[in-house]
Amino acid sequence: MTATRIEHDAFGPVEIPAGRYWGAQTQRALGVFDVGTERFPVCLLHAFGLQKIAAARANARCAALDAALAESIATAAGELSRGLFDDHFPLTIWQTGSGTQTNMNANEVIANRANELLGQPLGTKSPVHPNDHVNASQSSNDSFPTVMHIATAMELTQRLVPSLTVLKDALEDRARAFADAAKVARTHLMDAVPMTMGQAFEAFAWQANSGIARLKDALPRLLLLAQGGTAAGTGLNAPENFDVFFCEEIGKLTGLPFEPHPCKFEGMSGHDALVELSGALNVIATSLIKMANDIRWMGSGPRCGFGELVVPNDGLTSSIMPGKRNPTIAEVVAQAAMQVAGNHVTVTMAGASGNFELNVAKPVLIHGVLQSIRILADSARVFAGRLVAGLEVDRERLEANLGNALLSVTALNPVLGYDKVARITRTAVERRIAPREAAVELGYLSAEAYDRLVDPLRMARGKS
Amino acid sequence: MTATRIEHDAFGPVEIPAGRYWGAQTQRALGVFDVGTERFPVCLLHAFGLQKIAAARANARCAALDAALAESIATAAGELSRGLFDDHFPLTIWQTGSGTQTNMNANEVIANRANELLGQPLGTKSPVHPNDHVNASQSSNDSFPTVMHIATAMELTQRLVPSLTVLKDALEDRARAFADAAKVARTHLMDAVPMTMGQAFEAFAWQANSGIARLKDALPRLLLLAQGGTAAGTGLNAPENFDVFFCEEIGKLTGLPFEPHPCKFEGMSGHDALVELSGALNVIATSLIKMANDIRWMGSGPRCGFGELVVPNDGLTSSIMPGKRNPTIAEVVAQAAMQVAGNHVTVTMAGASGNFELNVAKPVLIHGVLQSIRILADSARVFAGRLVAGLEVDRERLEANLGNALLSVTALNPVLGYDKVARITRTAVERRIAPREAAVELGYLSAEAYDRLVDPLRMARGKS
Amino acid sequence: MTATRIEHDAFGPVEIPAGRYWGAQTQRALGVFDVGTERFPVCLLHAFGLQKIAAARANARCAALDAALAESIATAAGELSRGLFDDHFPLTIWQTGSGTQTNMNANEVIANRANELLGQPLGTKSPVHPNDHVNASQSSNDSFPTVMHIATAMELTQRLVPSLTVLKDALEDRARAFADAAKVARTHLMDAVPMTMGQAFEAFAWQANSGIARLKDALPRLLLLAQGGTAAGTGLNAPENFDVFFCEEIGKLTGLPFEPHPCKFEGMSGHDALVELSGALNVIATSLIKMANDIRWMGSGPRCGFGELVVPNDGLTSSIMPGKRNPTIAEVVAQAAMQVAGNHVTVTMAGASGNFELNVAKPVLIHGVLQSIRILADSARVFAGRLVAGLEVDRERLEANLGNALLSVTALNPVLGYDKVARITRTAVERRIAPREAAVELGYLSAEAYDRLVDPLRMARGKS
Amino acid sequence: MTATRIEHDAFGPVEIPAGRYWGAQTQRALGVFDVGTERFPVCLLHAFGLQKIAAARANARCAALDAALAESIATAAGELSRGLFDDHFPLTIWQTGSGTQTNMNANEVIANRANELLGQPLGTKSPVHPNDHVNASQSSNDSFPTVMHIATAMELTQRLVPSLTVLKDALEDRARAFADAAKVARTHLMDAVPMTMGQAFEAFAWQANSGIARLKDALPRLLLLAQGGTAAGTGLNAPENFDVFFCEEIGKLTGLPFEPHPCKFEGMSGHDALVELSGALNVIATSLIKMANDIRWMGSGPRCGFGELVVPNDGLTSSIMPGKRNPTIAEVVAQAAMQVAGNHVTVTMAGASGNFELNVAKPVLIHGVLQSIRILADSARVFAGRLVAGLEVDRERLEANLGNALLSVTALNPVLGYDKVARITRTAVERRIAPREAAVELGYLSAEAYDRLVDPLRMARGKS
Repeated sequence: MTATRIEHDAFGPVEIPAGRYWGAQTQRALGVFDVGTERFPVCLLHAFGLQKIAAARANARCAALDAALAESIATAAGELSRGLFDDHFPLTIWQTGSGTQTNMNANEVIANRANELLGQPLGTKSPVHPNDHVNASQSSNDSFPTVMHIATAMELTQRLVPSLTVLKDALEDRARAFADAAKVARTHLMDAVPMTMGQAFEAFAWQANSGIARLKDALPRLLLLAQGGTAAGTGLNAPENFDVFFCEEIGKLTGLPFEPHPCKFEGMSGHDALVELSGALNVIATSLIKMANDIRWMGSGPRCGFGELVVPNDGLTSSIMPGKRNPTIAEVVAQAAMQVAGNHVTVTMAGASGNFELNVAKPVLIHGVLQSIRILADSARVFAGRLVAGLEVDRERLEANLGNALLSVTALNPVLGYDKVARITRTAVERRIAPREAAVELGYLSAEAYDRLVDPLRMARGKS
Repeated sequence: MTATRIEHDAFGPVEIPAGRYWGAQTQRALGVFDVGTERFPVCLLHAFGLQKIAAARANARCAALDAALAESIATAAGELSRGLFDDHFPLTIWQTGSGTQTNMNANEVIANRANELLGQPLGTKSPVHPNDHVNASQSSNDSFPTVMHIATAMELTQRLVPSLTVLKDALEDRARAFADAAKVARTHLMDAVPMTMGQAFEAFAWQANSGIARLKDALPRLLLLAQGGTAAGTGLNAPENFDVFFCEEIGKLTGLPFEPHPCKFEGMSGHDALVELSGALNVIATSLIKMANDIRWMGSGPRCGFGELVVPNDGLTSSIMPGKRNPTIAEVVAQAAMQVAGNHVTVTMAGASGNFELNVAKPVLIHGVLQSIRILADSARVFAGRLVAGLEVDRERLEANLGNALLSVTALNPVLGYDKVARITRTAVERRIAPREAAVELGYLSAEAYDRLVDPLRMARGKS
Repeated sequence: MTATRIEHDAFGPVEIPAGRYWGAQTQRALGVFDVGTERFPVCLLHAFGLQKIAAARANARCAALDAALAESIATAAGELSRGLFDDHFPLTIWQTGSGTQTNMNANEVIANRANELLGQPLGTKSPVHPNDHVNASQSSNDSFPTVMHIATAMELTQRLVPSLTVLKDALEDRARAFADAAKVARTHLMDAVPMTMGQAFEAFAWQANSGIARLKDALPRLLLLAQGGTAAGTGLNAPENFDVFFCEEIGKLTGLPFEPHPCKFEGMSGHDALVELSGALNVIATSLIKMANDIRWMGSGPRCGFGELVVPNDGLTSSIMPGKRNPTIAEVVAQAAMQVAGNHVTVTMAGASGNFELNVAKPVLIHGVLQSIRILADSARVFAGRLVAGLEVDRERLEANLGNALLSVTALNPVLGYDKVARITRTAVERRIAPREAAVELGYLSAEAYDRLVDPLRMARGKS
Repeated sequence: MTATRIEHDAFGPVEIPAGRYWGAQTQRALGVFDVGTERFPVCLLHAFGLQKIAAARANARCAALDAALAESIATAAGELSRGLFDDHFPLTIWQTGSGTQTNMNANEVIANRANELLGQPLGTKSPVHPNDHVNASQSSNDSFPTVMHIATAMELTQRLVPSLTVLKDALEDRARAFADAAKVARTHLMDAVPMTMGQAFEAFAWQANSGIARLKDALPRLLLLAQGGTAAGTGLNAPENFDVFFCEEIGKLTGLPFEPHPCKFEGMSGHDALVELSGALNVIATSLIKMANDIRWMGSGPRCGFGELVVPNDGLTSSIMPGKRNPTIAEVVAQAAMQVAGNHVTVTMAGASGNFELNVAKPVLIHGVLQSIRILADSARVFAGRLVAGLEVDRERLEANLGNALLSVTALNPVLGYDKVARITRTAVERRIAPREAAVELGYLSAEAYDRLVDPLRMARGKS
């Protein structure tokens, strides 16, 4: 038997496990929403802590809360923001579409903790009341979307952008390392003209860098906060300038230049800013799939594939084929990207489902966005550190391929004309010989002349 | 400092936390795949337990394993299947696309536990070896897709179908209860002819029932197992009839008529059967969104909306507007459905991403499928029990609406002709009166005649 | 200046281009819905012709229409069903969500044509009236979803299933032709154990065949027709047994066993049956992407890729690289499949968007389904006929690869044990020699013994 | 029998319908790609005309083409850009993934027309040759993605942004018109506190305006052109500065500041810029669904729904229910938005499917993007002009609703305290009376005091 205590809300008494800081509404919700196992990531809970600090201080500045009471709340909320109460949020994301239960959960935990710090037992609701004080001048309708934006902006700037930067750097490093590694280009999967492996990695780095730019473009609209809209966006019962003070306080706590949303109705009834960001995450997923695929295809083999790249050993192997090495991390990256693309559809449907003054698909929407950010960031970091950074080219294979690449002869067009060049190709195919051999055999030019004219590194720079 | 022990694999020694049953390959993978927080649901781990029991017994029947050794493995695997080792699977789903690490994790846990039961310390690998014995006649390539099918088929039949049946029953119960509750039908959201509330719930019940039928149609292809394909589908190193014996054993354990896949290459290189099932889940999600929306719209108000249904009280309320009651559970259902629709896109992309002899998006694919099943099942059950079962109609409101429903006069077409009927409508609109009043005022018929001809319950059955 | 005639509807006179058979409501809609260029495929228009024939005859059987008048309608509708009026449907799909305007368009064209056949000028509406006679006992609400099902069921059975059957046959033919072409299998894109090319094509054929089975499973729910539901599903103003007679008549015209939907409210308010079918199309798209990709990767090269398959020449080449041949048709297949996957999301959102008694996303939903069917059918047929049927293996390449495939030595496990086998692999990698050479050099066995034990065709059948 | 002429290409002679300007490669492709009916929108063909003008002039500036020849090409290409050859592009989008056939089609049409203007019959290929001259310094690999960007940037700036601006203006106009129309806000679909109808339209206008901002953010990356990359991105065989001159010329023709892509490999191997734009279109679709839904729900009724907005008459009606008016245009908007969301998935999959130096899903990708732009632009324009601009509020209904809105009493919290306010609500619910009546009856305050304190317009501005 677990020890319990009794808390009360408008509907009567509720039994709560003794050591838990949540209160009556959370406990009641636990009984109602018995669905699934998915929790909000802790970054959202921590953002709730920050939001409640900023709200308490803004309330104090507006004289809507006693200054000492406000600081008690801020202290308790600060502990929440530092992860000390992660285990006191028992609800899954499958709750009311406004996120009300998790807002109430935060209010209850903070009130209980603040009262405890002031020497009261859990459940007293005094001197700090979860609704009257912790939630003062707020509604779930404005607090939850505000927390959605705070958590997202922080994860974006502190987790995803740094991780993509690491990836971009690793790609640029390999681009430099492979700058003179000539290889055959491939279009439609088929052998084409020469290029360098460095150029392939420059294209990847461009993609990674553009991804960072896309995130930065999405940020300004994320920095607008609905806080202060209270019920339905009207701002009813919120003191003058509460929104301005709130943004100043949350700015100090996060280092991010949040601003009051000029149209709070929009900030609560829709989540276009998050759907937009999810679109940017979707592009990054697209880019990562391209890179992961190209790298694992170029590393395919070791003998019967393209075999141009050597993937670093990760110490994992097949249980049945001894010594088999697989591009495991590239597969992680691709799978994470697929999840992001699917989440984007969920986020889009959630974003499109709002009615009137409130979008009520907030929990599933923010869960998708934060999951996408997290798995993109983590997989990009692991991809950079454990795969890209350790890539090497197999120069023997690159050269053998290049010598066989029929369409290198495209460089002879200006000298021999299209028809003779086509005849070289045809001869090489029919006789299964290298194009150089065919060109010499046909008497069109000497081996020396061929080597001078068909120079892969010059061709890679567009010179024929 | 946590106490540790040392285990070895082909790459050397590895330190493992003392009380953990996993082994060297799992520990090594933990260091490599530091991505995200998503775990496989325990039903997949339990299915791994069943798969290893069946494999051990099939091996014994093929004389590929000593009978006593096989039963030791079966005993340990049985504990895994009953949830005793859920905490010994530390990896996230973000691992190799073949699920190899979780298969190895299962092998290691079972070997350690079997050896422990035989009096050996953890890490001895003897007499039971994770690869040679627990994984005997198997490969991750065939075991993991087999477990995907086992877990899915069990969740489908034991969790989702029962839950949808509960929902169907609740809807049919309400259809009966509301059979004579006449109401205005709405097309394009606009008032149309009369029908009954019971008919609306019959349509919902039809949807729920069809959802069950769709799942049953998808089942046969899920019952084909890739087990026995070993490396790449060839069956190399698996004894004769291993696949047949395996299916007999797993059939006994699960009560489901699994069969060896006649084309094992297909069962490992693609996951069309799961993409198909995900499509069925997607239809069920679509149906649930329709129901949840109709119910919350018909329950909107209480005063300024449709107000035709009264949603049962769930004891949760708004923090700022006292006494406000919201259709919280309908919002859970809709959000779960959006997640399912997004997962379906992930599953589709994963299913389409296979190359050659192995689809390597298995972890993300099965995670999506099992999540969709779980949240559909849970939300349907809660929807049925806490919302649908408690629904009541507001008969006063239904009647007031019906009296105002202009297009009820469609029933007068056969008597008065289209033109006079249109004039009744026009008059009612212009003068803001009820159509009955307009009809009488225009002198077309008496109030009694009107009531006899415009009989909502008869009209609902298609009689004018 | 185009000559025009004047037609009238309830809102007054409308000018219509002289030679056009549509009427006032269509012309009016043209002015309102000035959006996009997408038209319904002609199969939907032809299905409308059939639906109006069946409705006319069912009306005659119910005595709701004079027999001669009914046959006039049937004659004109027959011309529509045979494609004689395709140019008389000027509206795009971007119209009312019930498809009302296209139903009215069909009514107007048929009425005008029937009157013309009876010697009246266009626009007379007599003796055949578009609403009173052509649309008798019907509503757009039941006619349009009925036509959606008729067109889909016909396209499915007459276009897609035959096309997939052709593909399945072509794949099975190649499976037989390549039955003894041993090749290296690949898992994680990496060289694995031997198999045959025939086995790869057996897996493709299994996928194609399962696709056909999935379509057949979806058919029964498509054969239920909403016709007879009239306004909102009530059946108001439709004569007794109209739905039964309608299904008999449409069955004669199409050869398909249509039945009256037992719950007509469901057949109009939701389109789960079409969302389900779209899910089956989505699986087929998934299968086709897998096949198209495998084939183009195995055909990549000709020199610097896998080069195991030779794709037939289609007479198209690069404008800049002379003689370059690309797997163009595989690219068509993959692109069509991507469109199908995207359409599936549109169809899902459309299916989920219904409210109350009518789903009002019918036009976009059916456009997506019919487009998906058409492009899958066409691309599967072209894929079969112009690509698969002409595929050949490059046996020299297959053999060279096999000789290099390190993990063929897995077959030596039972003879030499895992450790010695691993040493062979390591030696082959380090010295860049074939595994056979390494095995002999290490003195483990003779070349003859190696060849006897490492027999690719036996290994492909799972024998070590 | 159609008259034909004979043209030749590298594979021999081909028969072409006499009056058609396309050539041998187009005709050959027609025979190969017999799939579907979808064509590129004419804006893409016109953009090809502009691209060929700019290429001809850049070639002349590089001395890669004779100036007179270049101007002949420019003249013919100019006709293409003005729509004179729309009927001479017979291929569907289901072609090679590089768009090669449509590039060749453009080359052939322009060469034939240029030669015709110079007095030569069709098919002579002299003095203007389709490959050597029209396609000079180009490849399909760089021309097609260049045209994709040109067409998209033009459609974006000339069609979609103006259309969204019209919508934004119409919404702002209605926001002003409804500024003092107090109404009940709704959260979770349930009656909440008072607001104004103007505020609802301000939120819509904010969404529309943000959509425009999102498009403008995506533009810079669209303005980078791959032209000059020729084969695989290397620039092989393109003269020095060709890319710079090209961008100058295309800039003059379009008025858009295009620039050479600094990493041409990226511009051909991936289409992240278009996937990004598609994400922005997806957000706009999301916004439009929200607006269309809110407007049709607020206009639902006329008697048995919300009935707060009156939708303008579009002259279309039901065929069975006389006088029924439906929100047809809102349904068009919602359906177009669903298509855009589905296209976005297709575009994402296409964008993710690139390998090595070329993305070969270009036709399906650009078809999706351009279709999304077109239907969003058209539906937004029709929505603005034919629906939003004509919206009126039903003030009687708004007032009746407000009087009934229980939670207006939230404004009494500061005066009476939460408990007494809750009692007012409870009394109003139980006795089915207005909250004002309940407040007075309970003796808490006078009717006058109530009216002074519960002032909807003040509450809408957040003042209690």
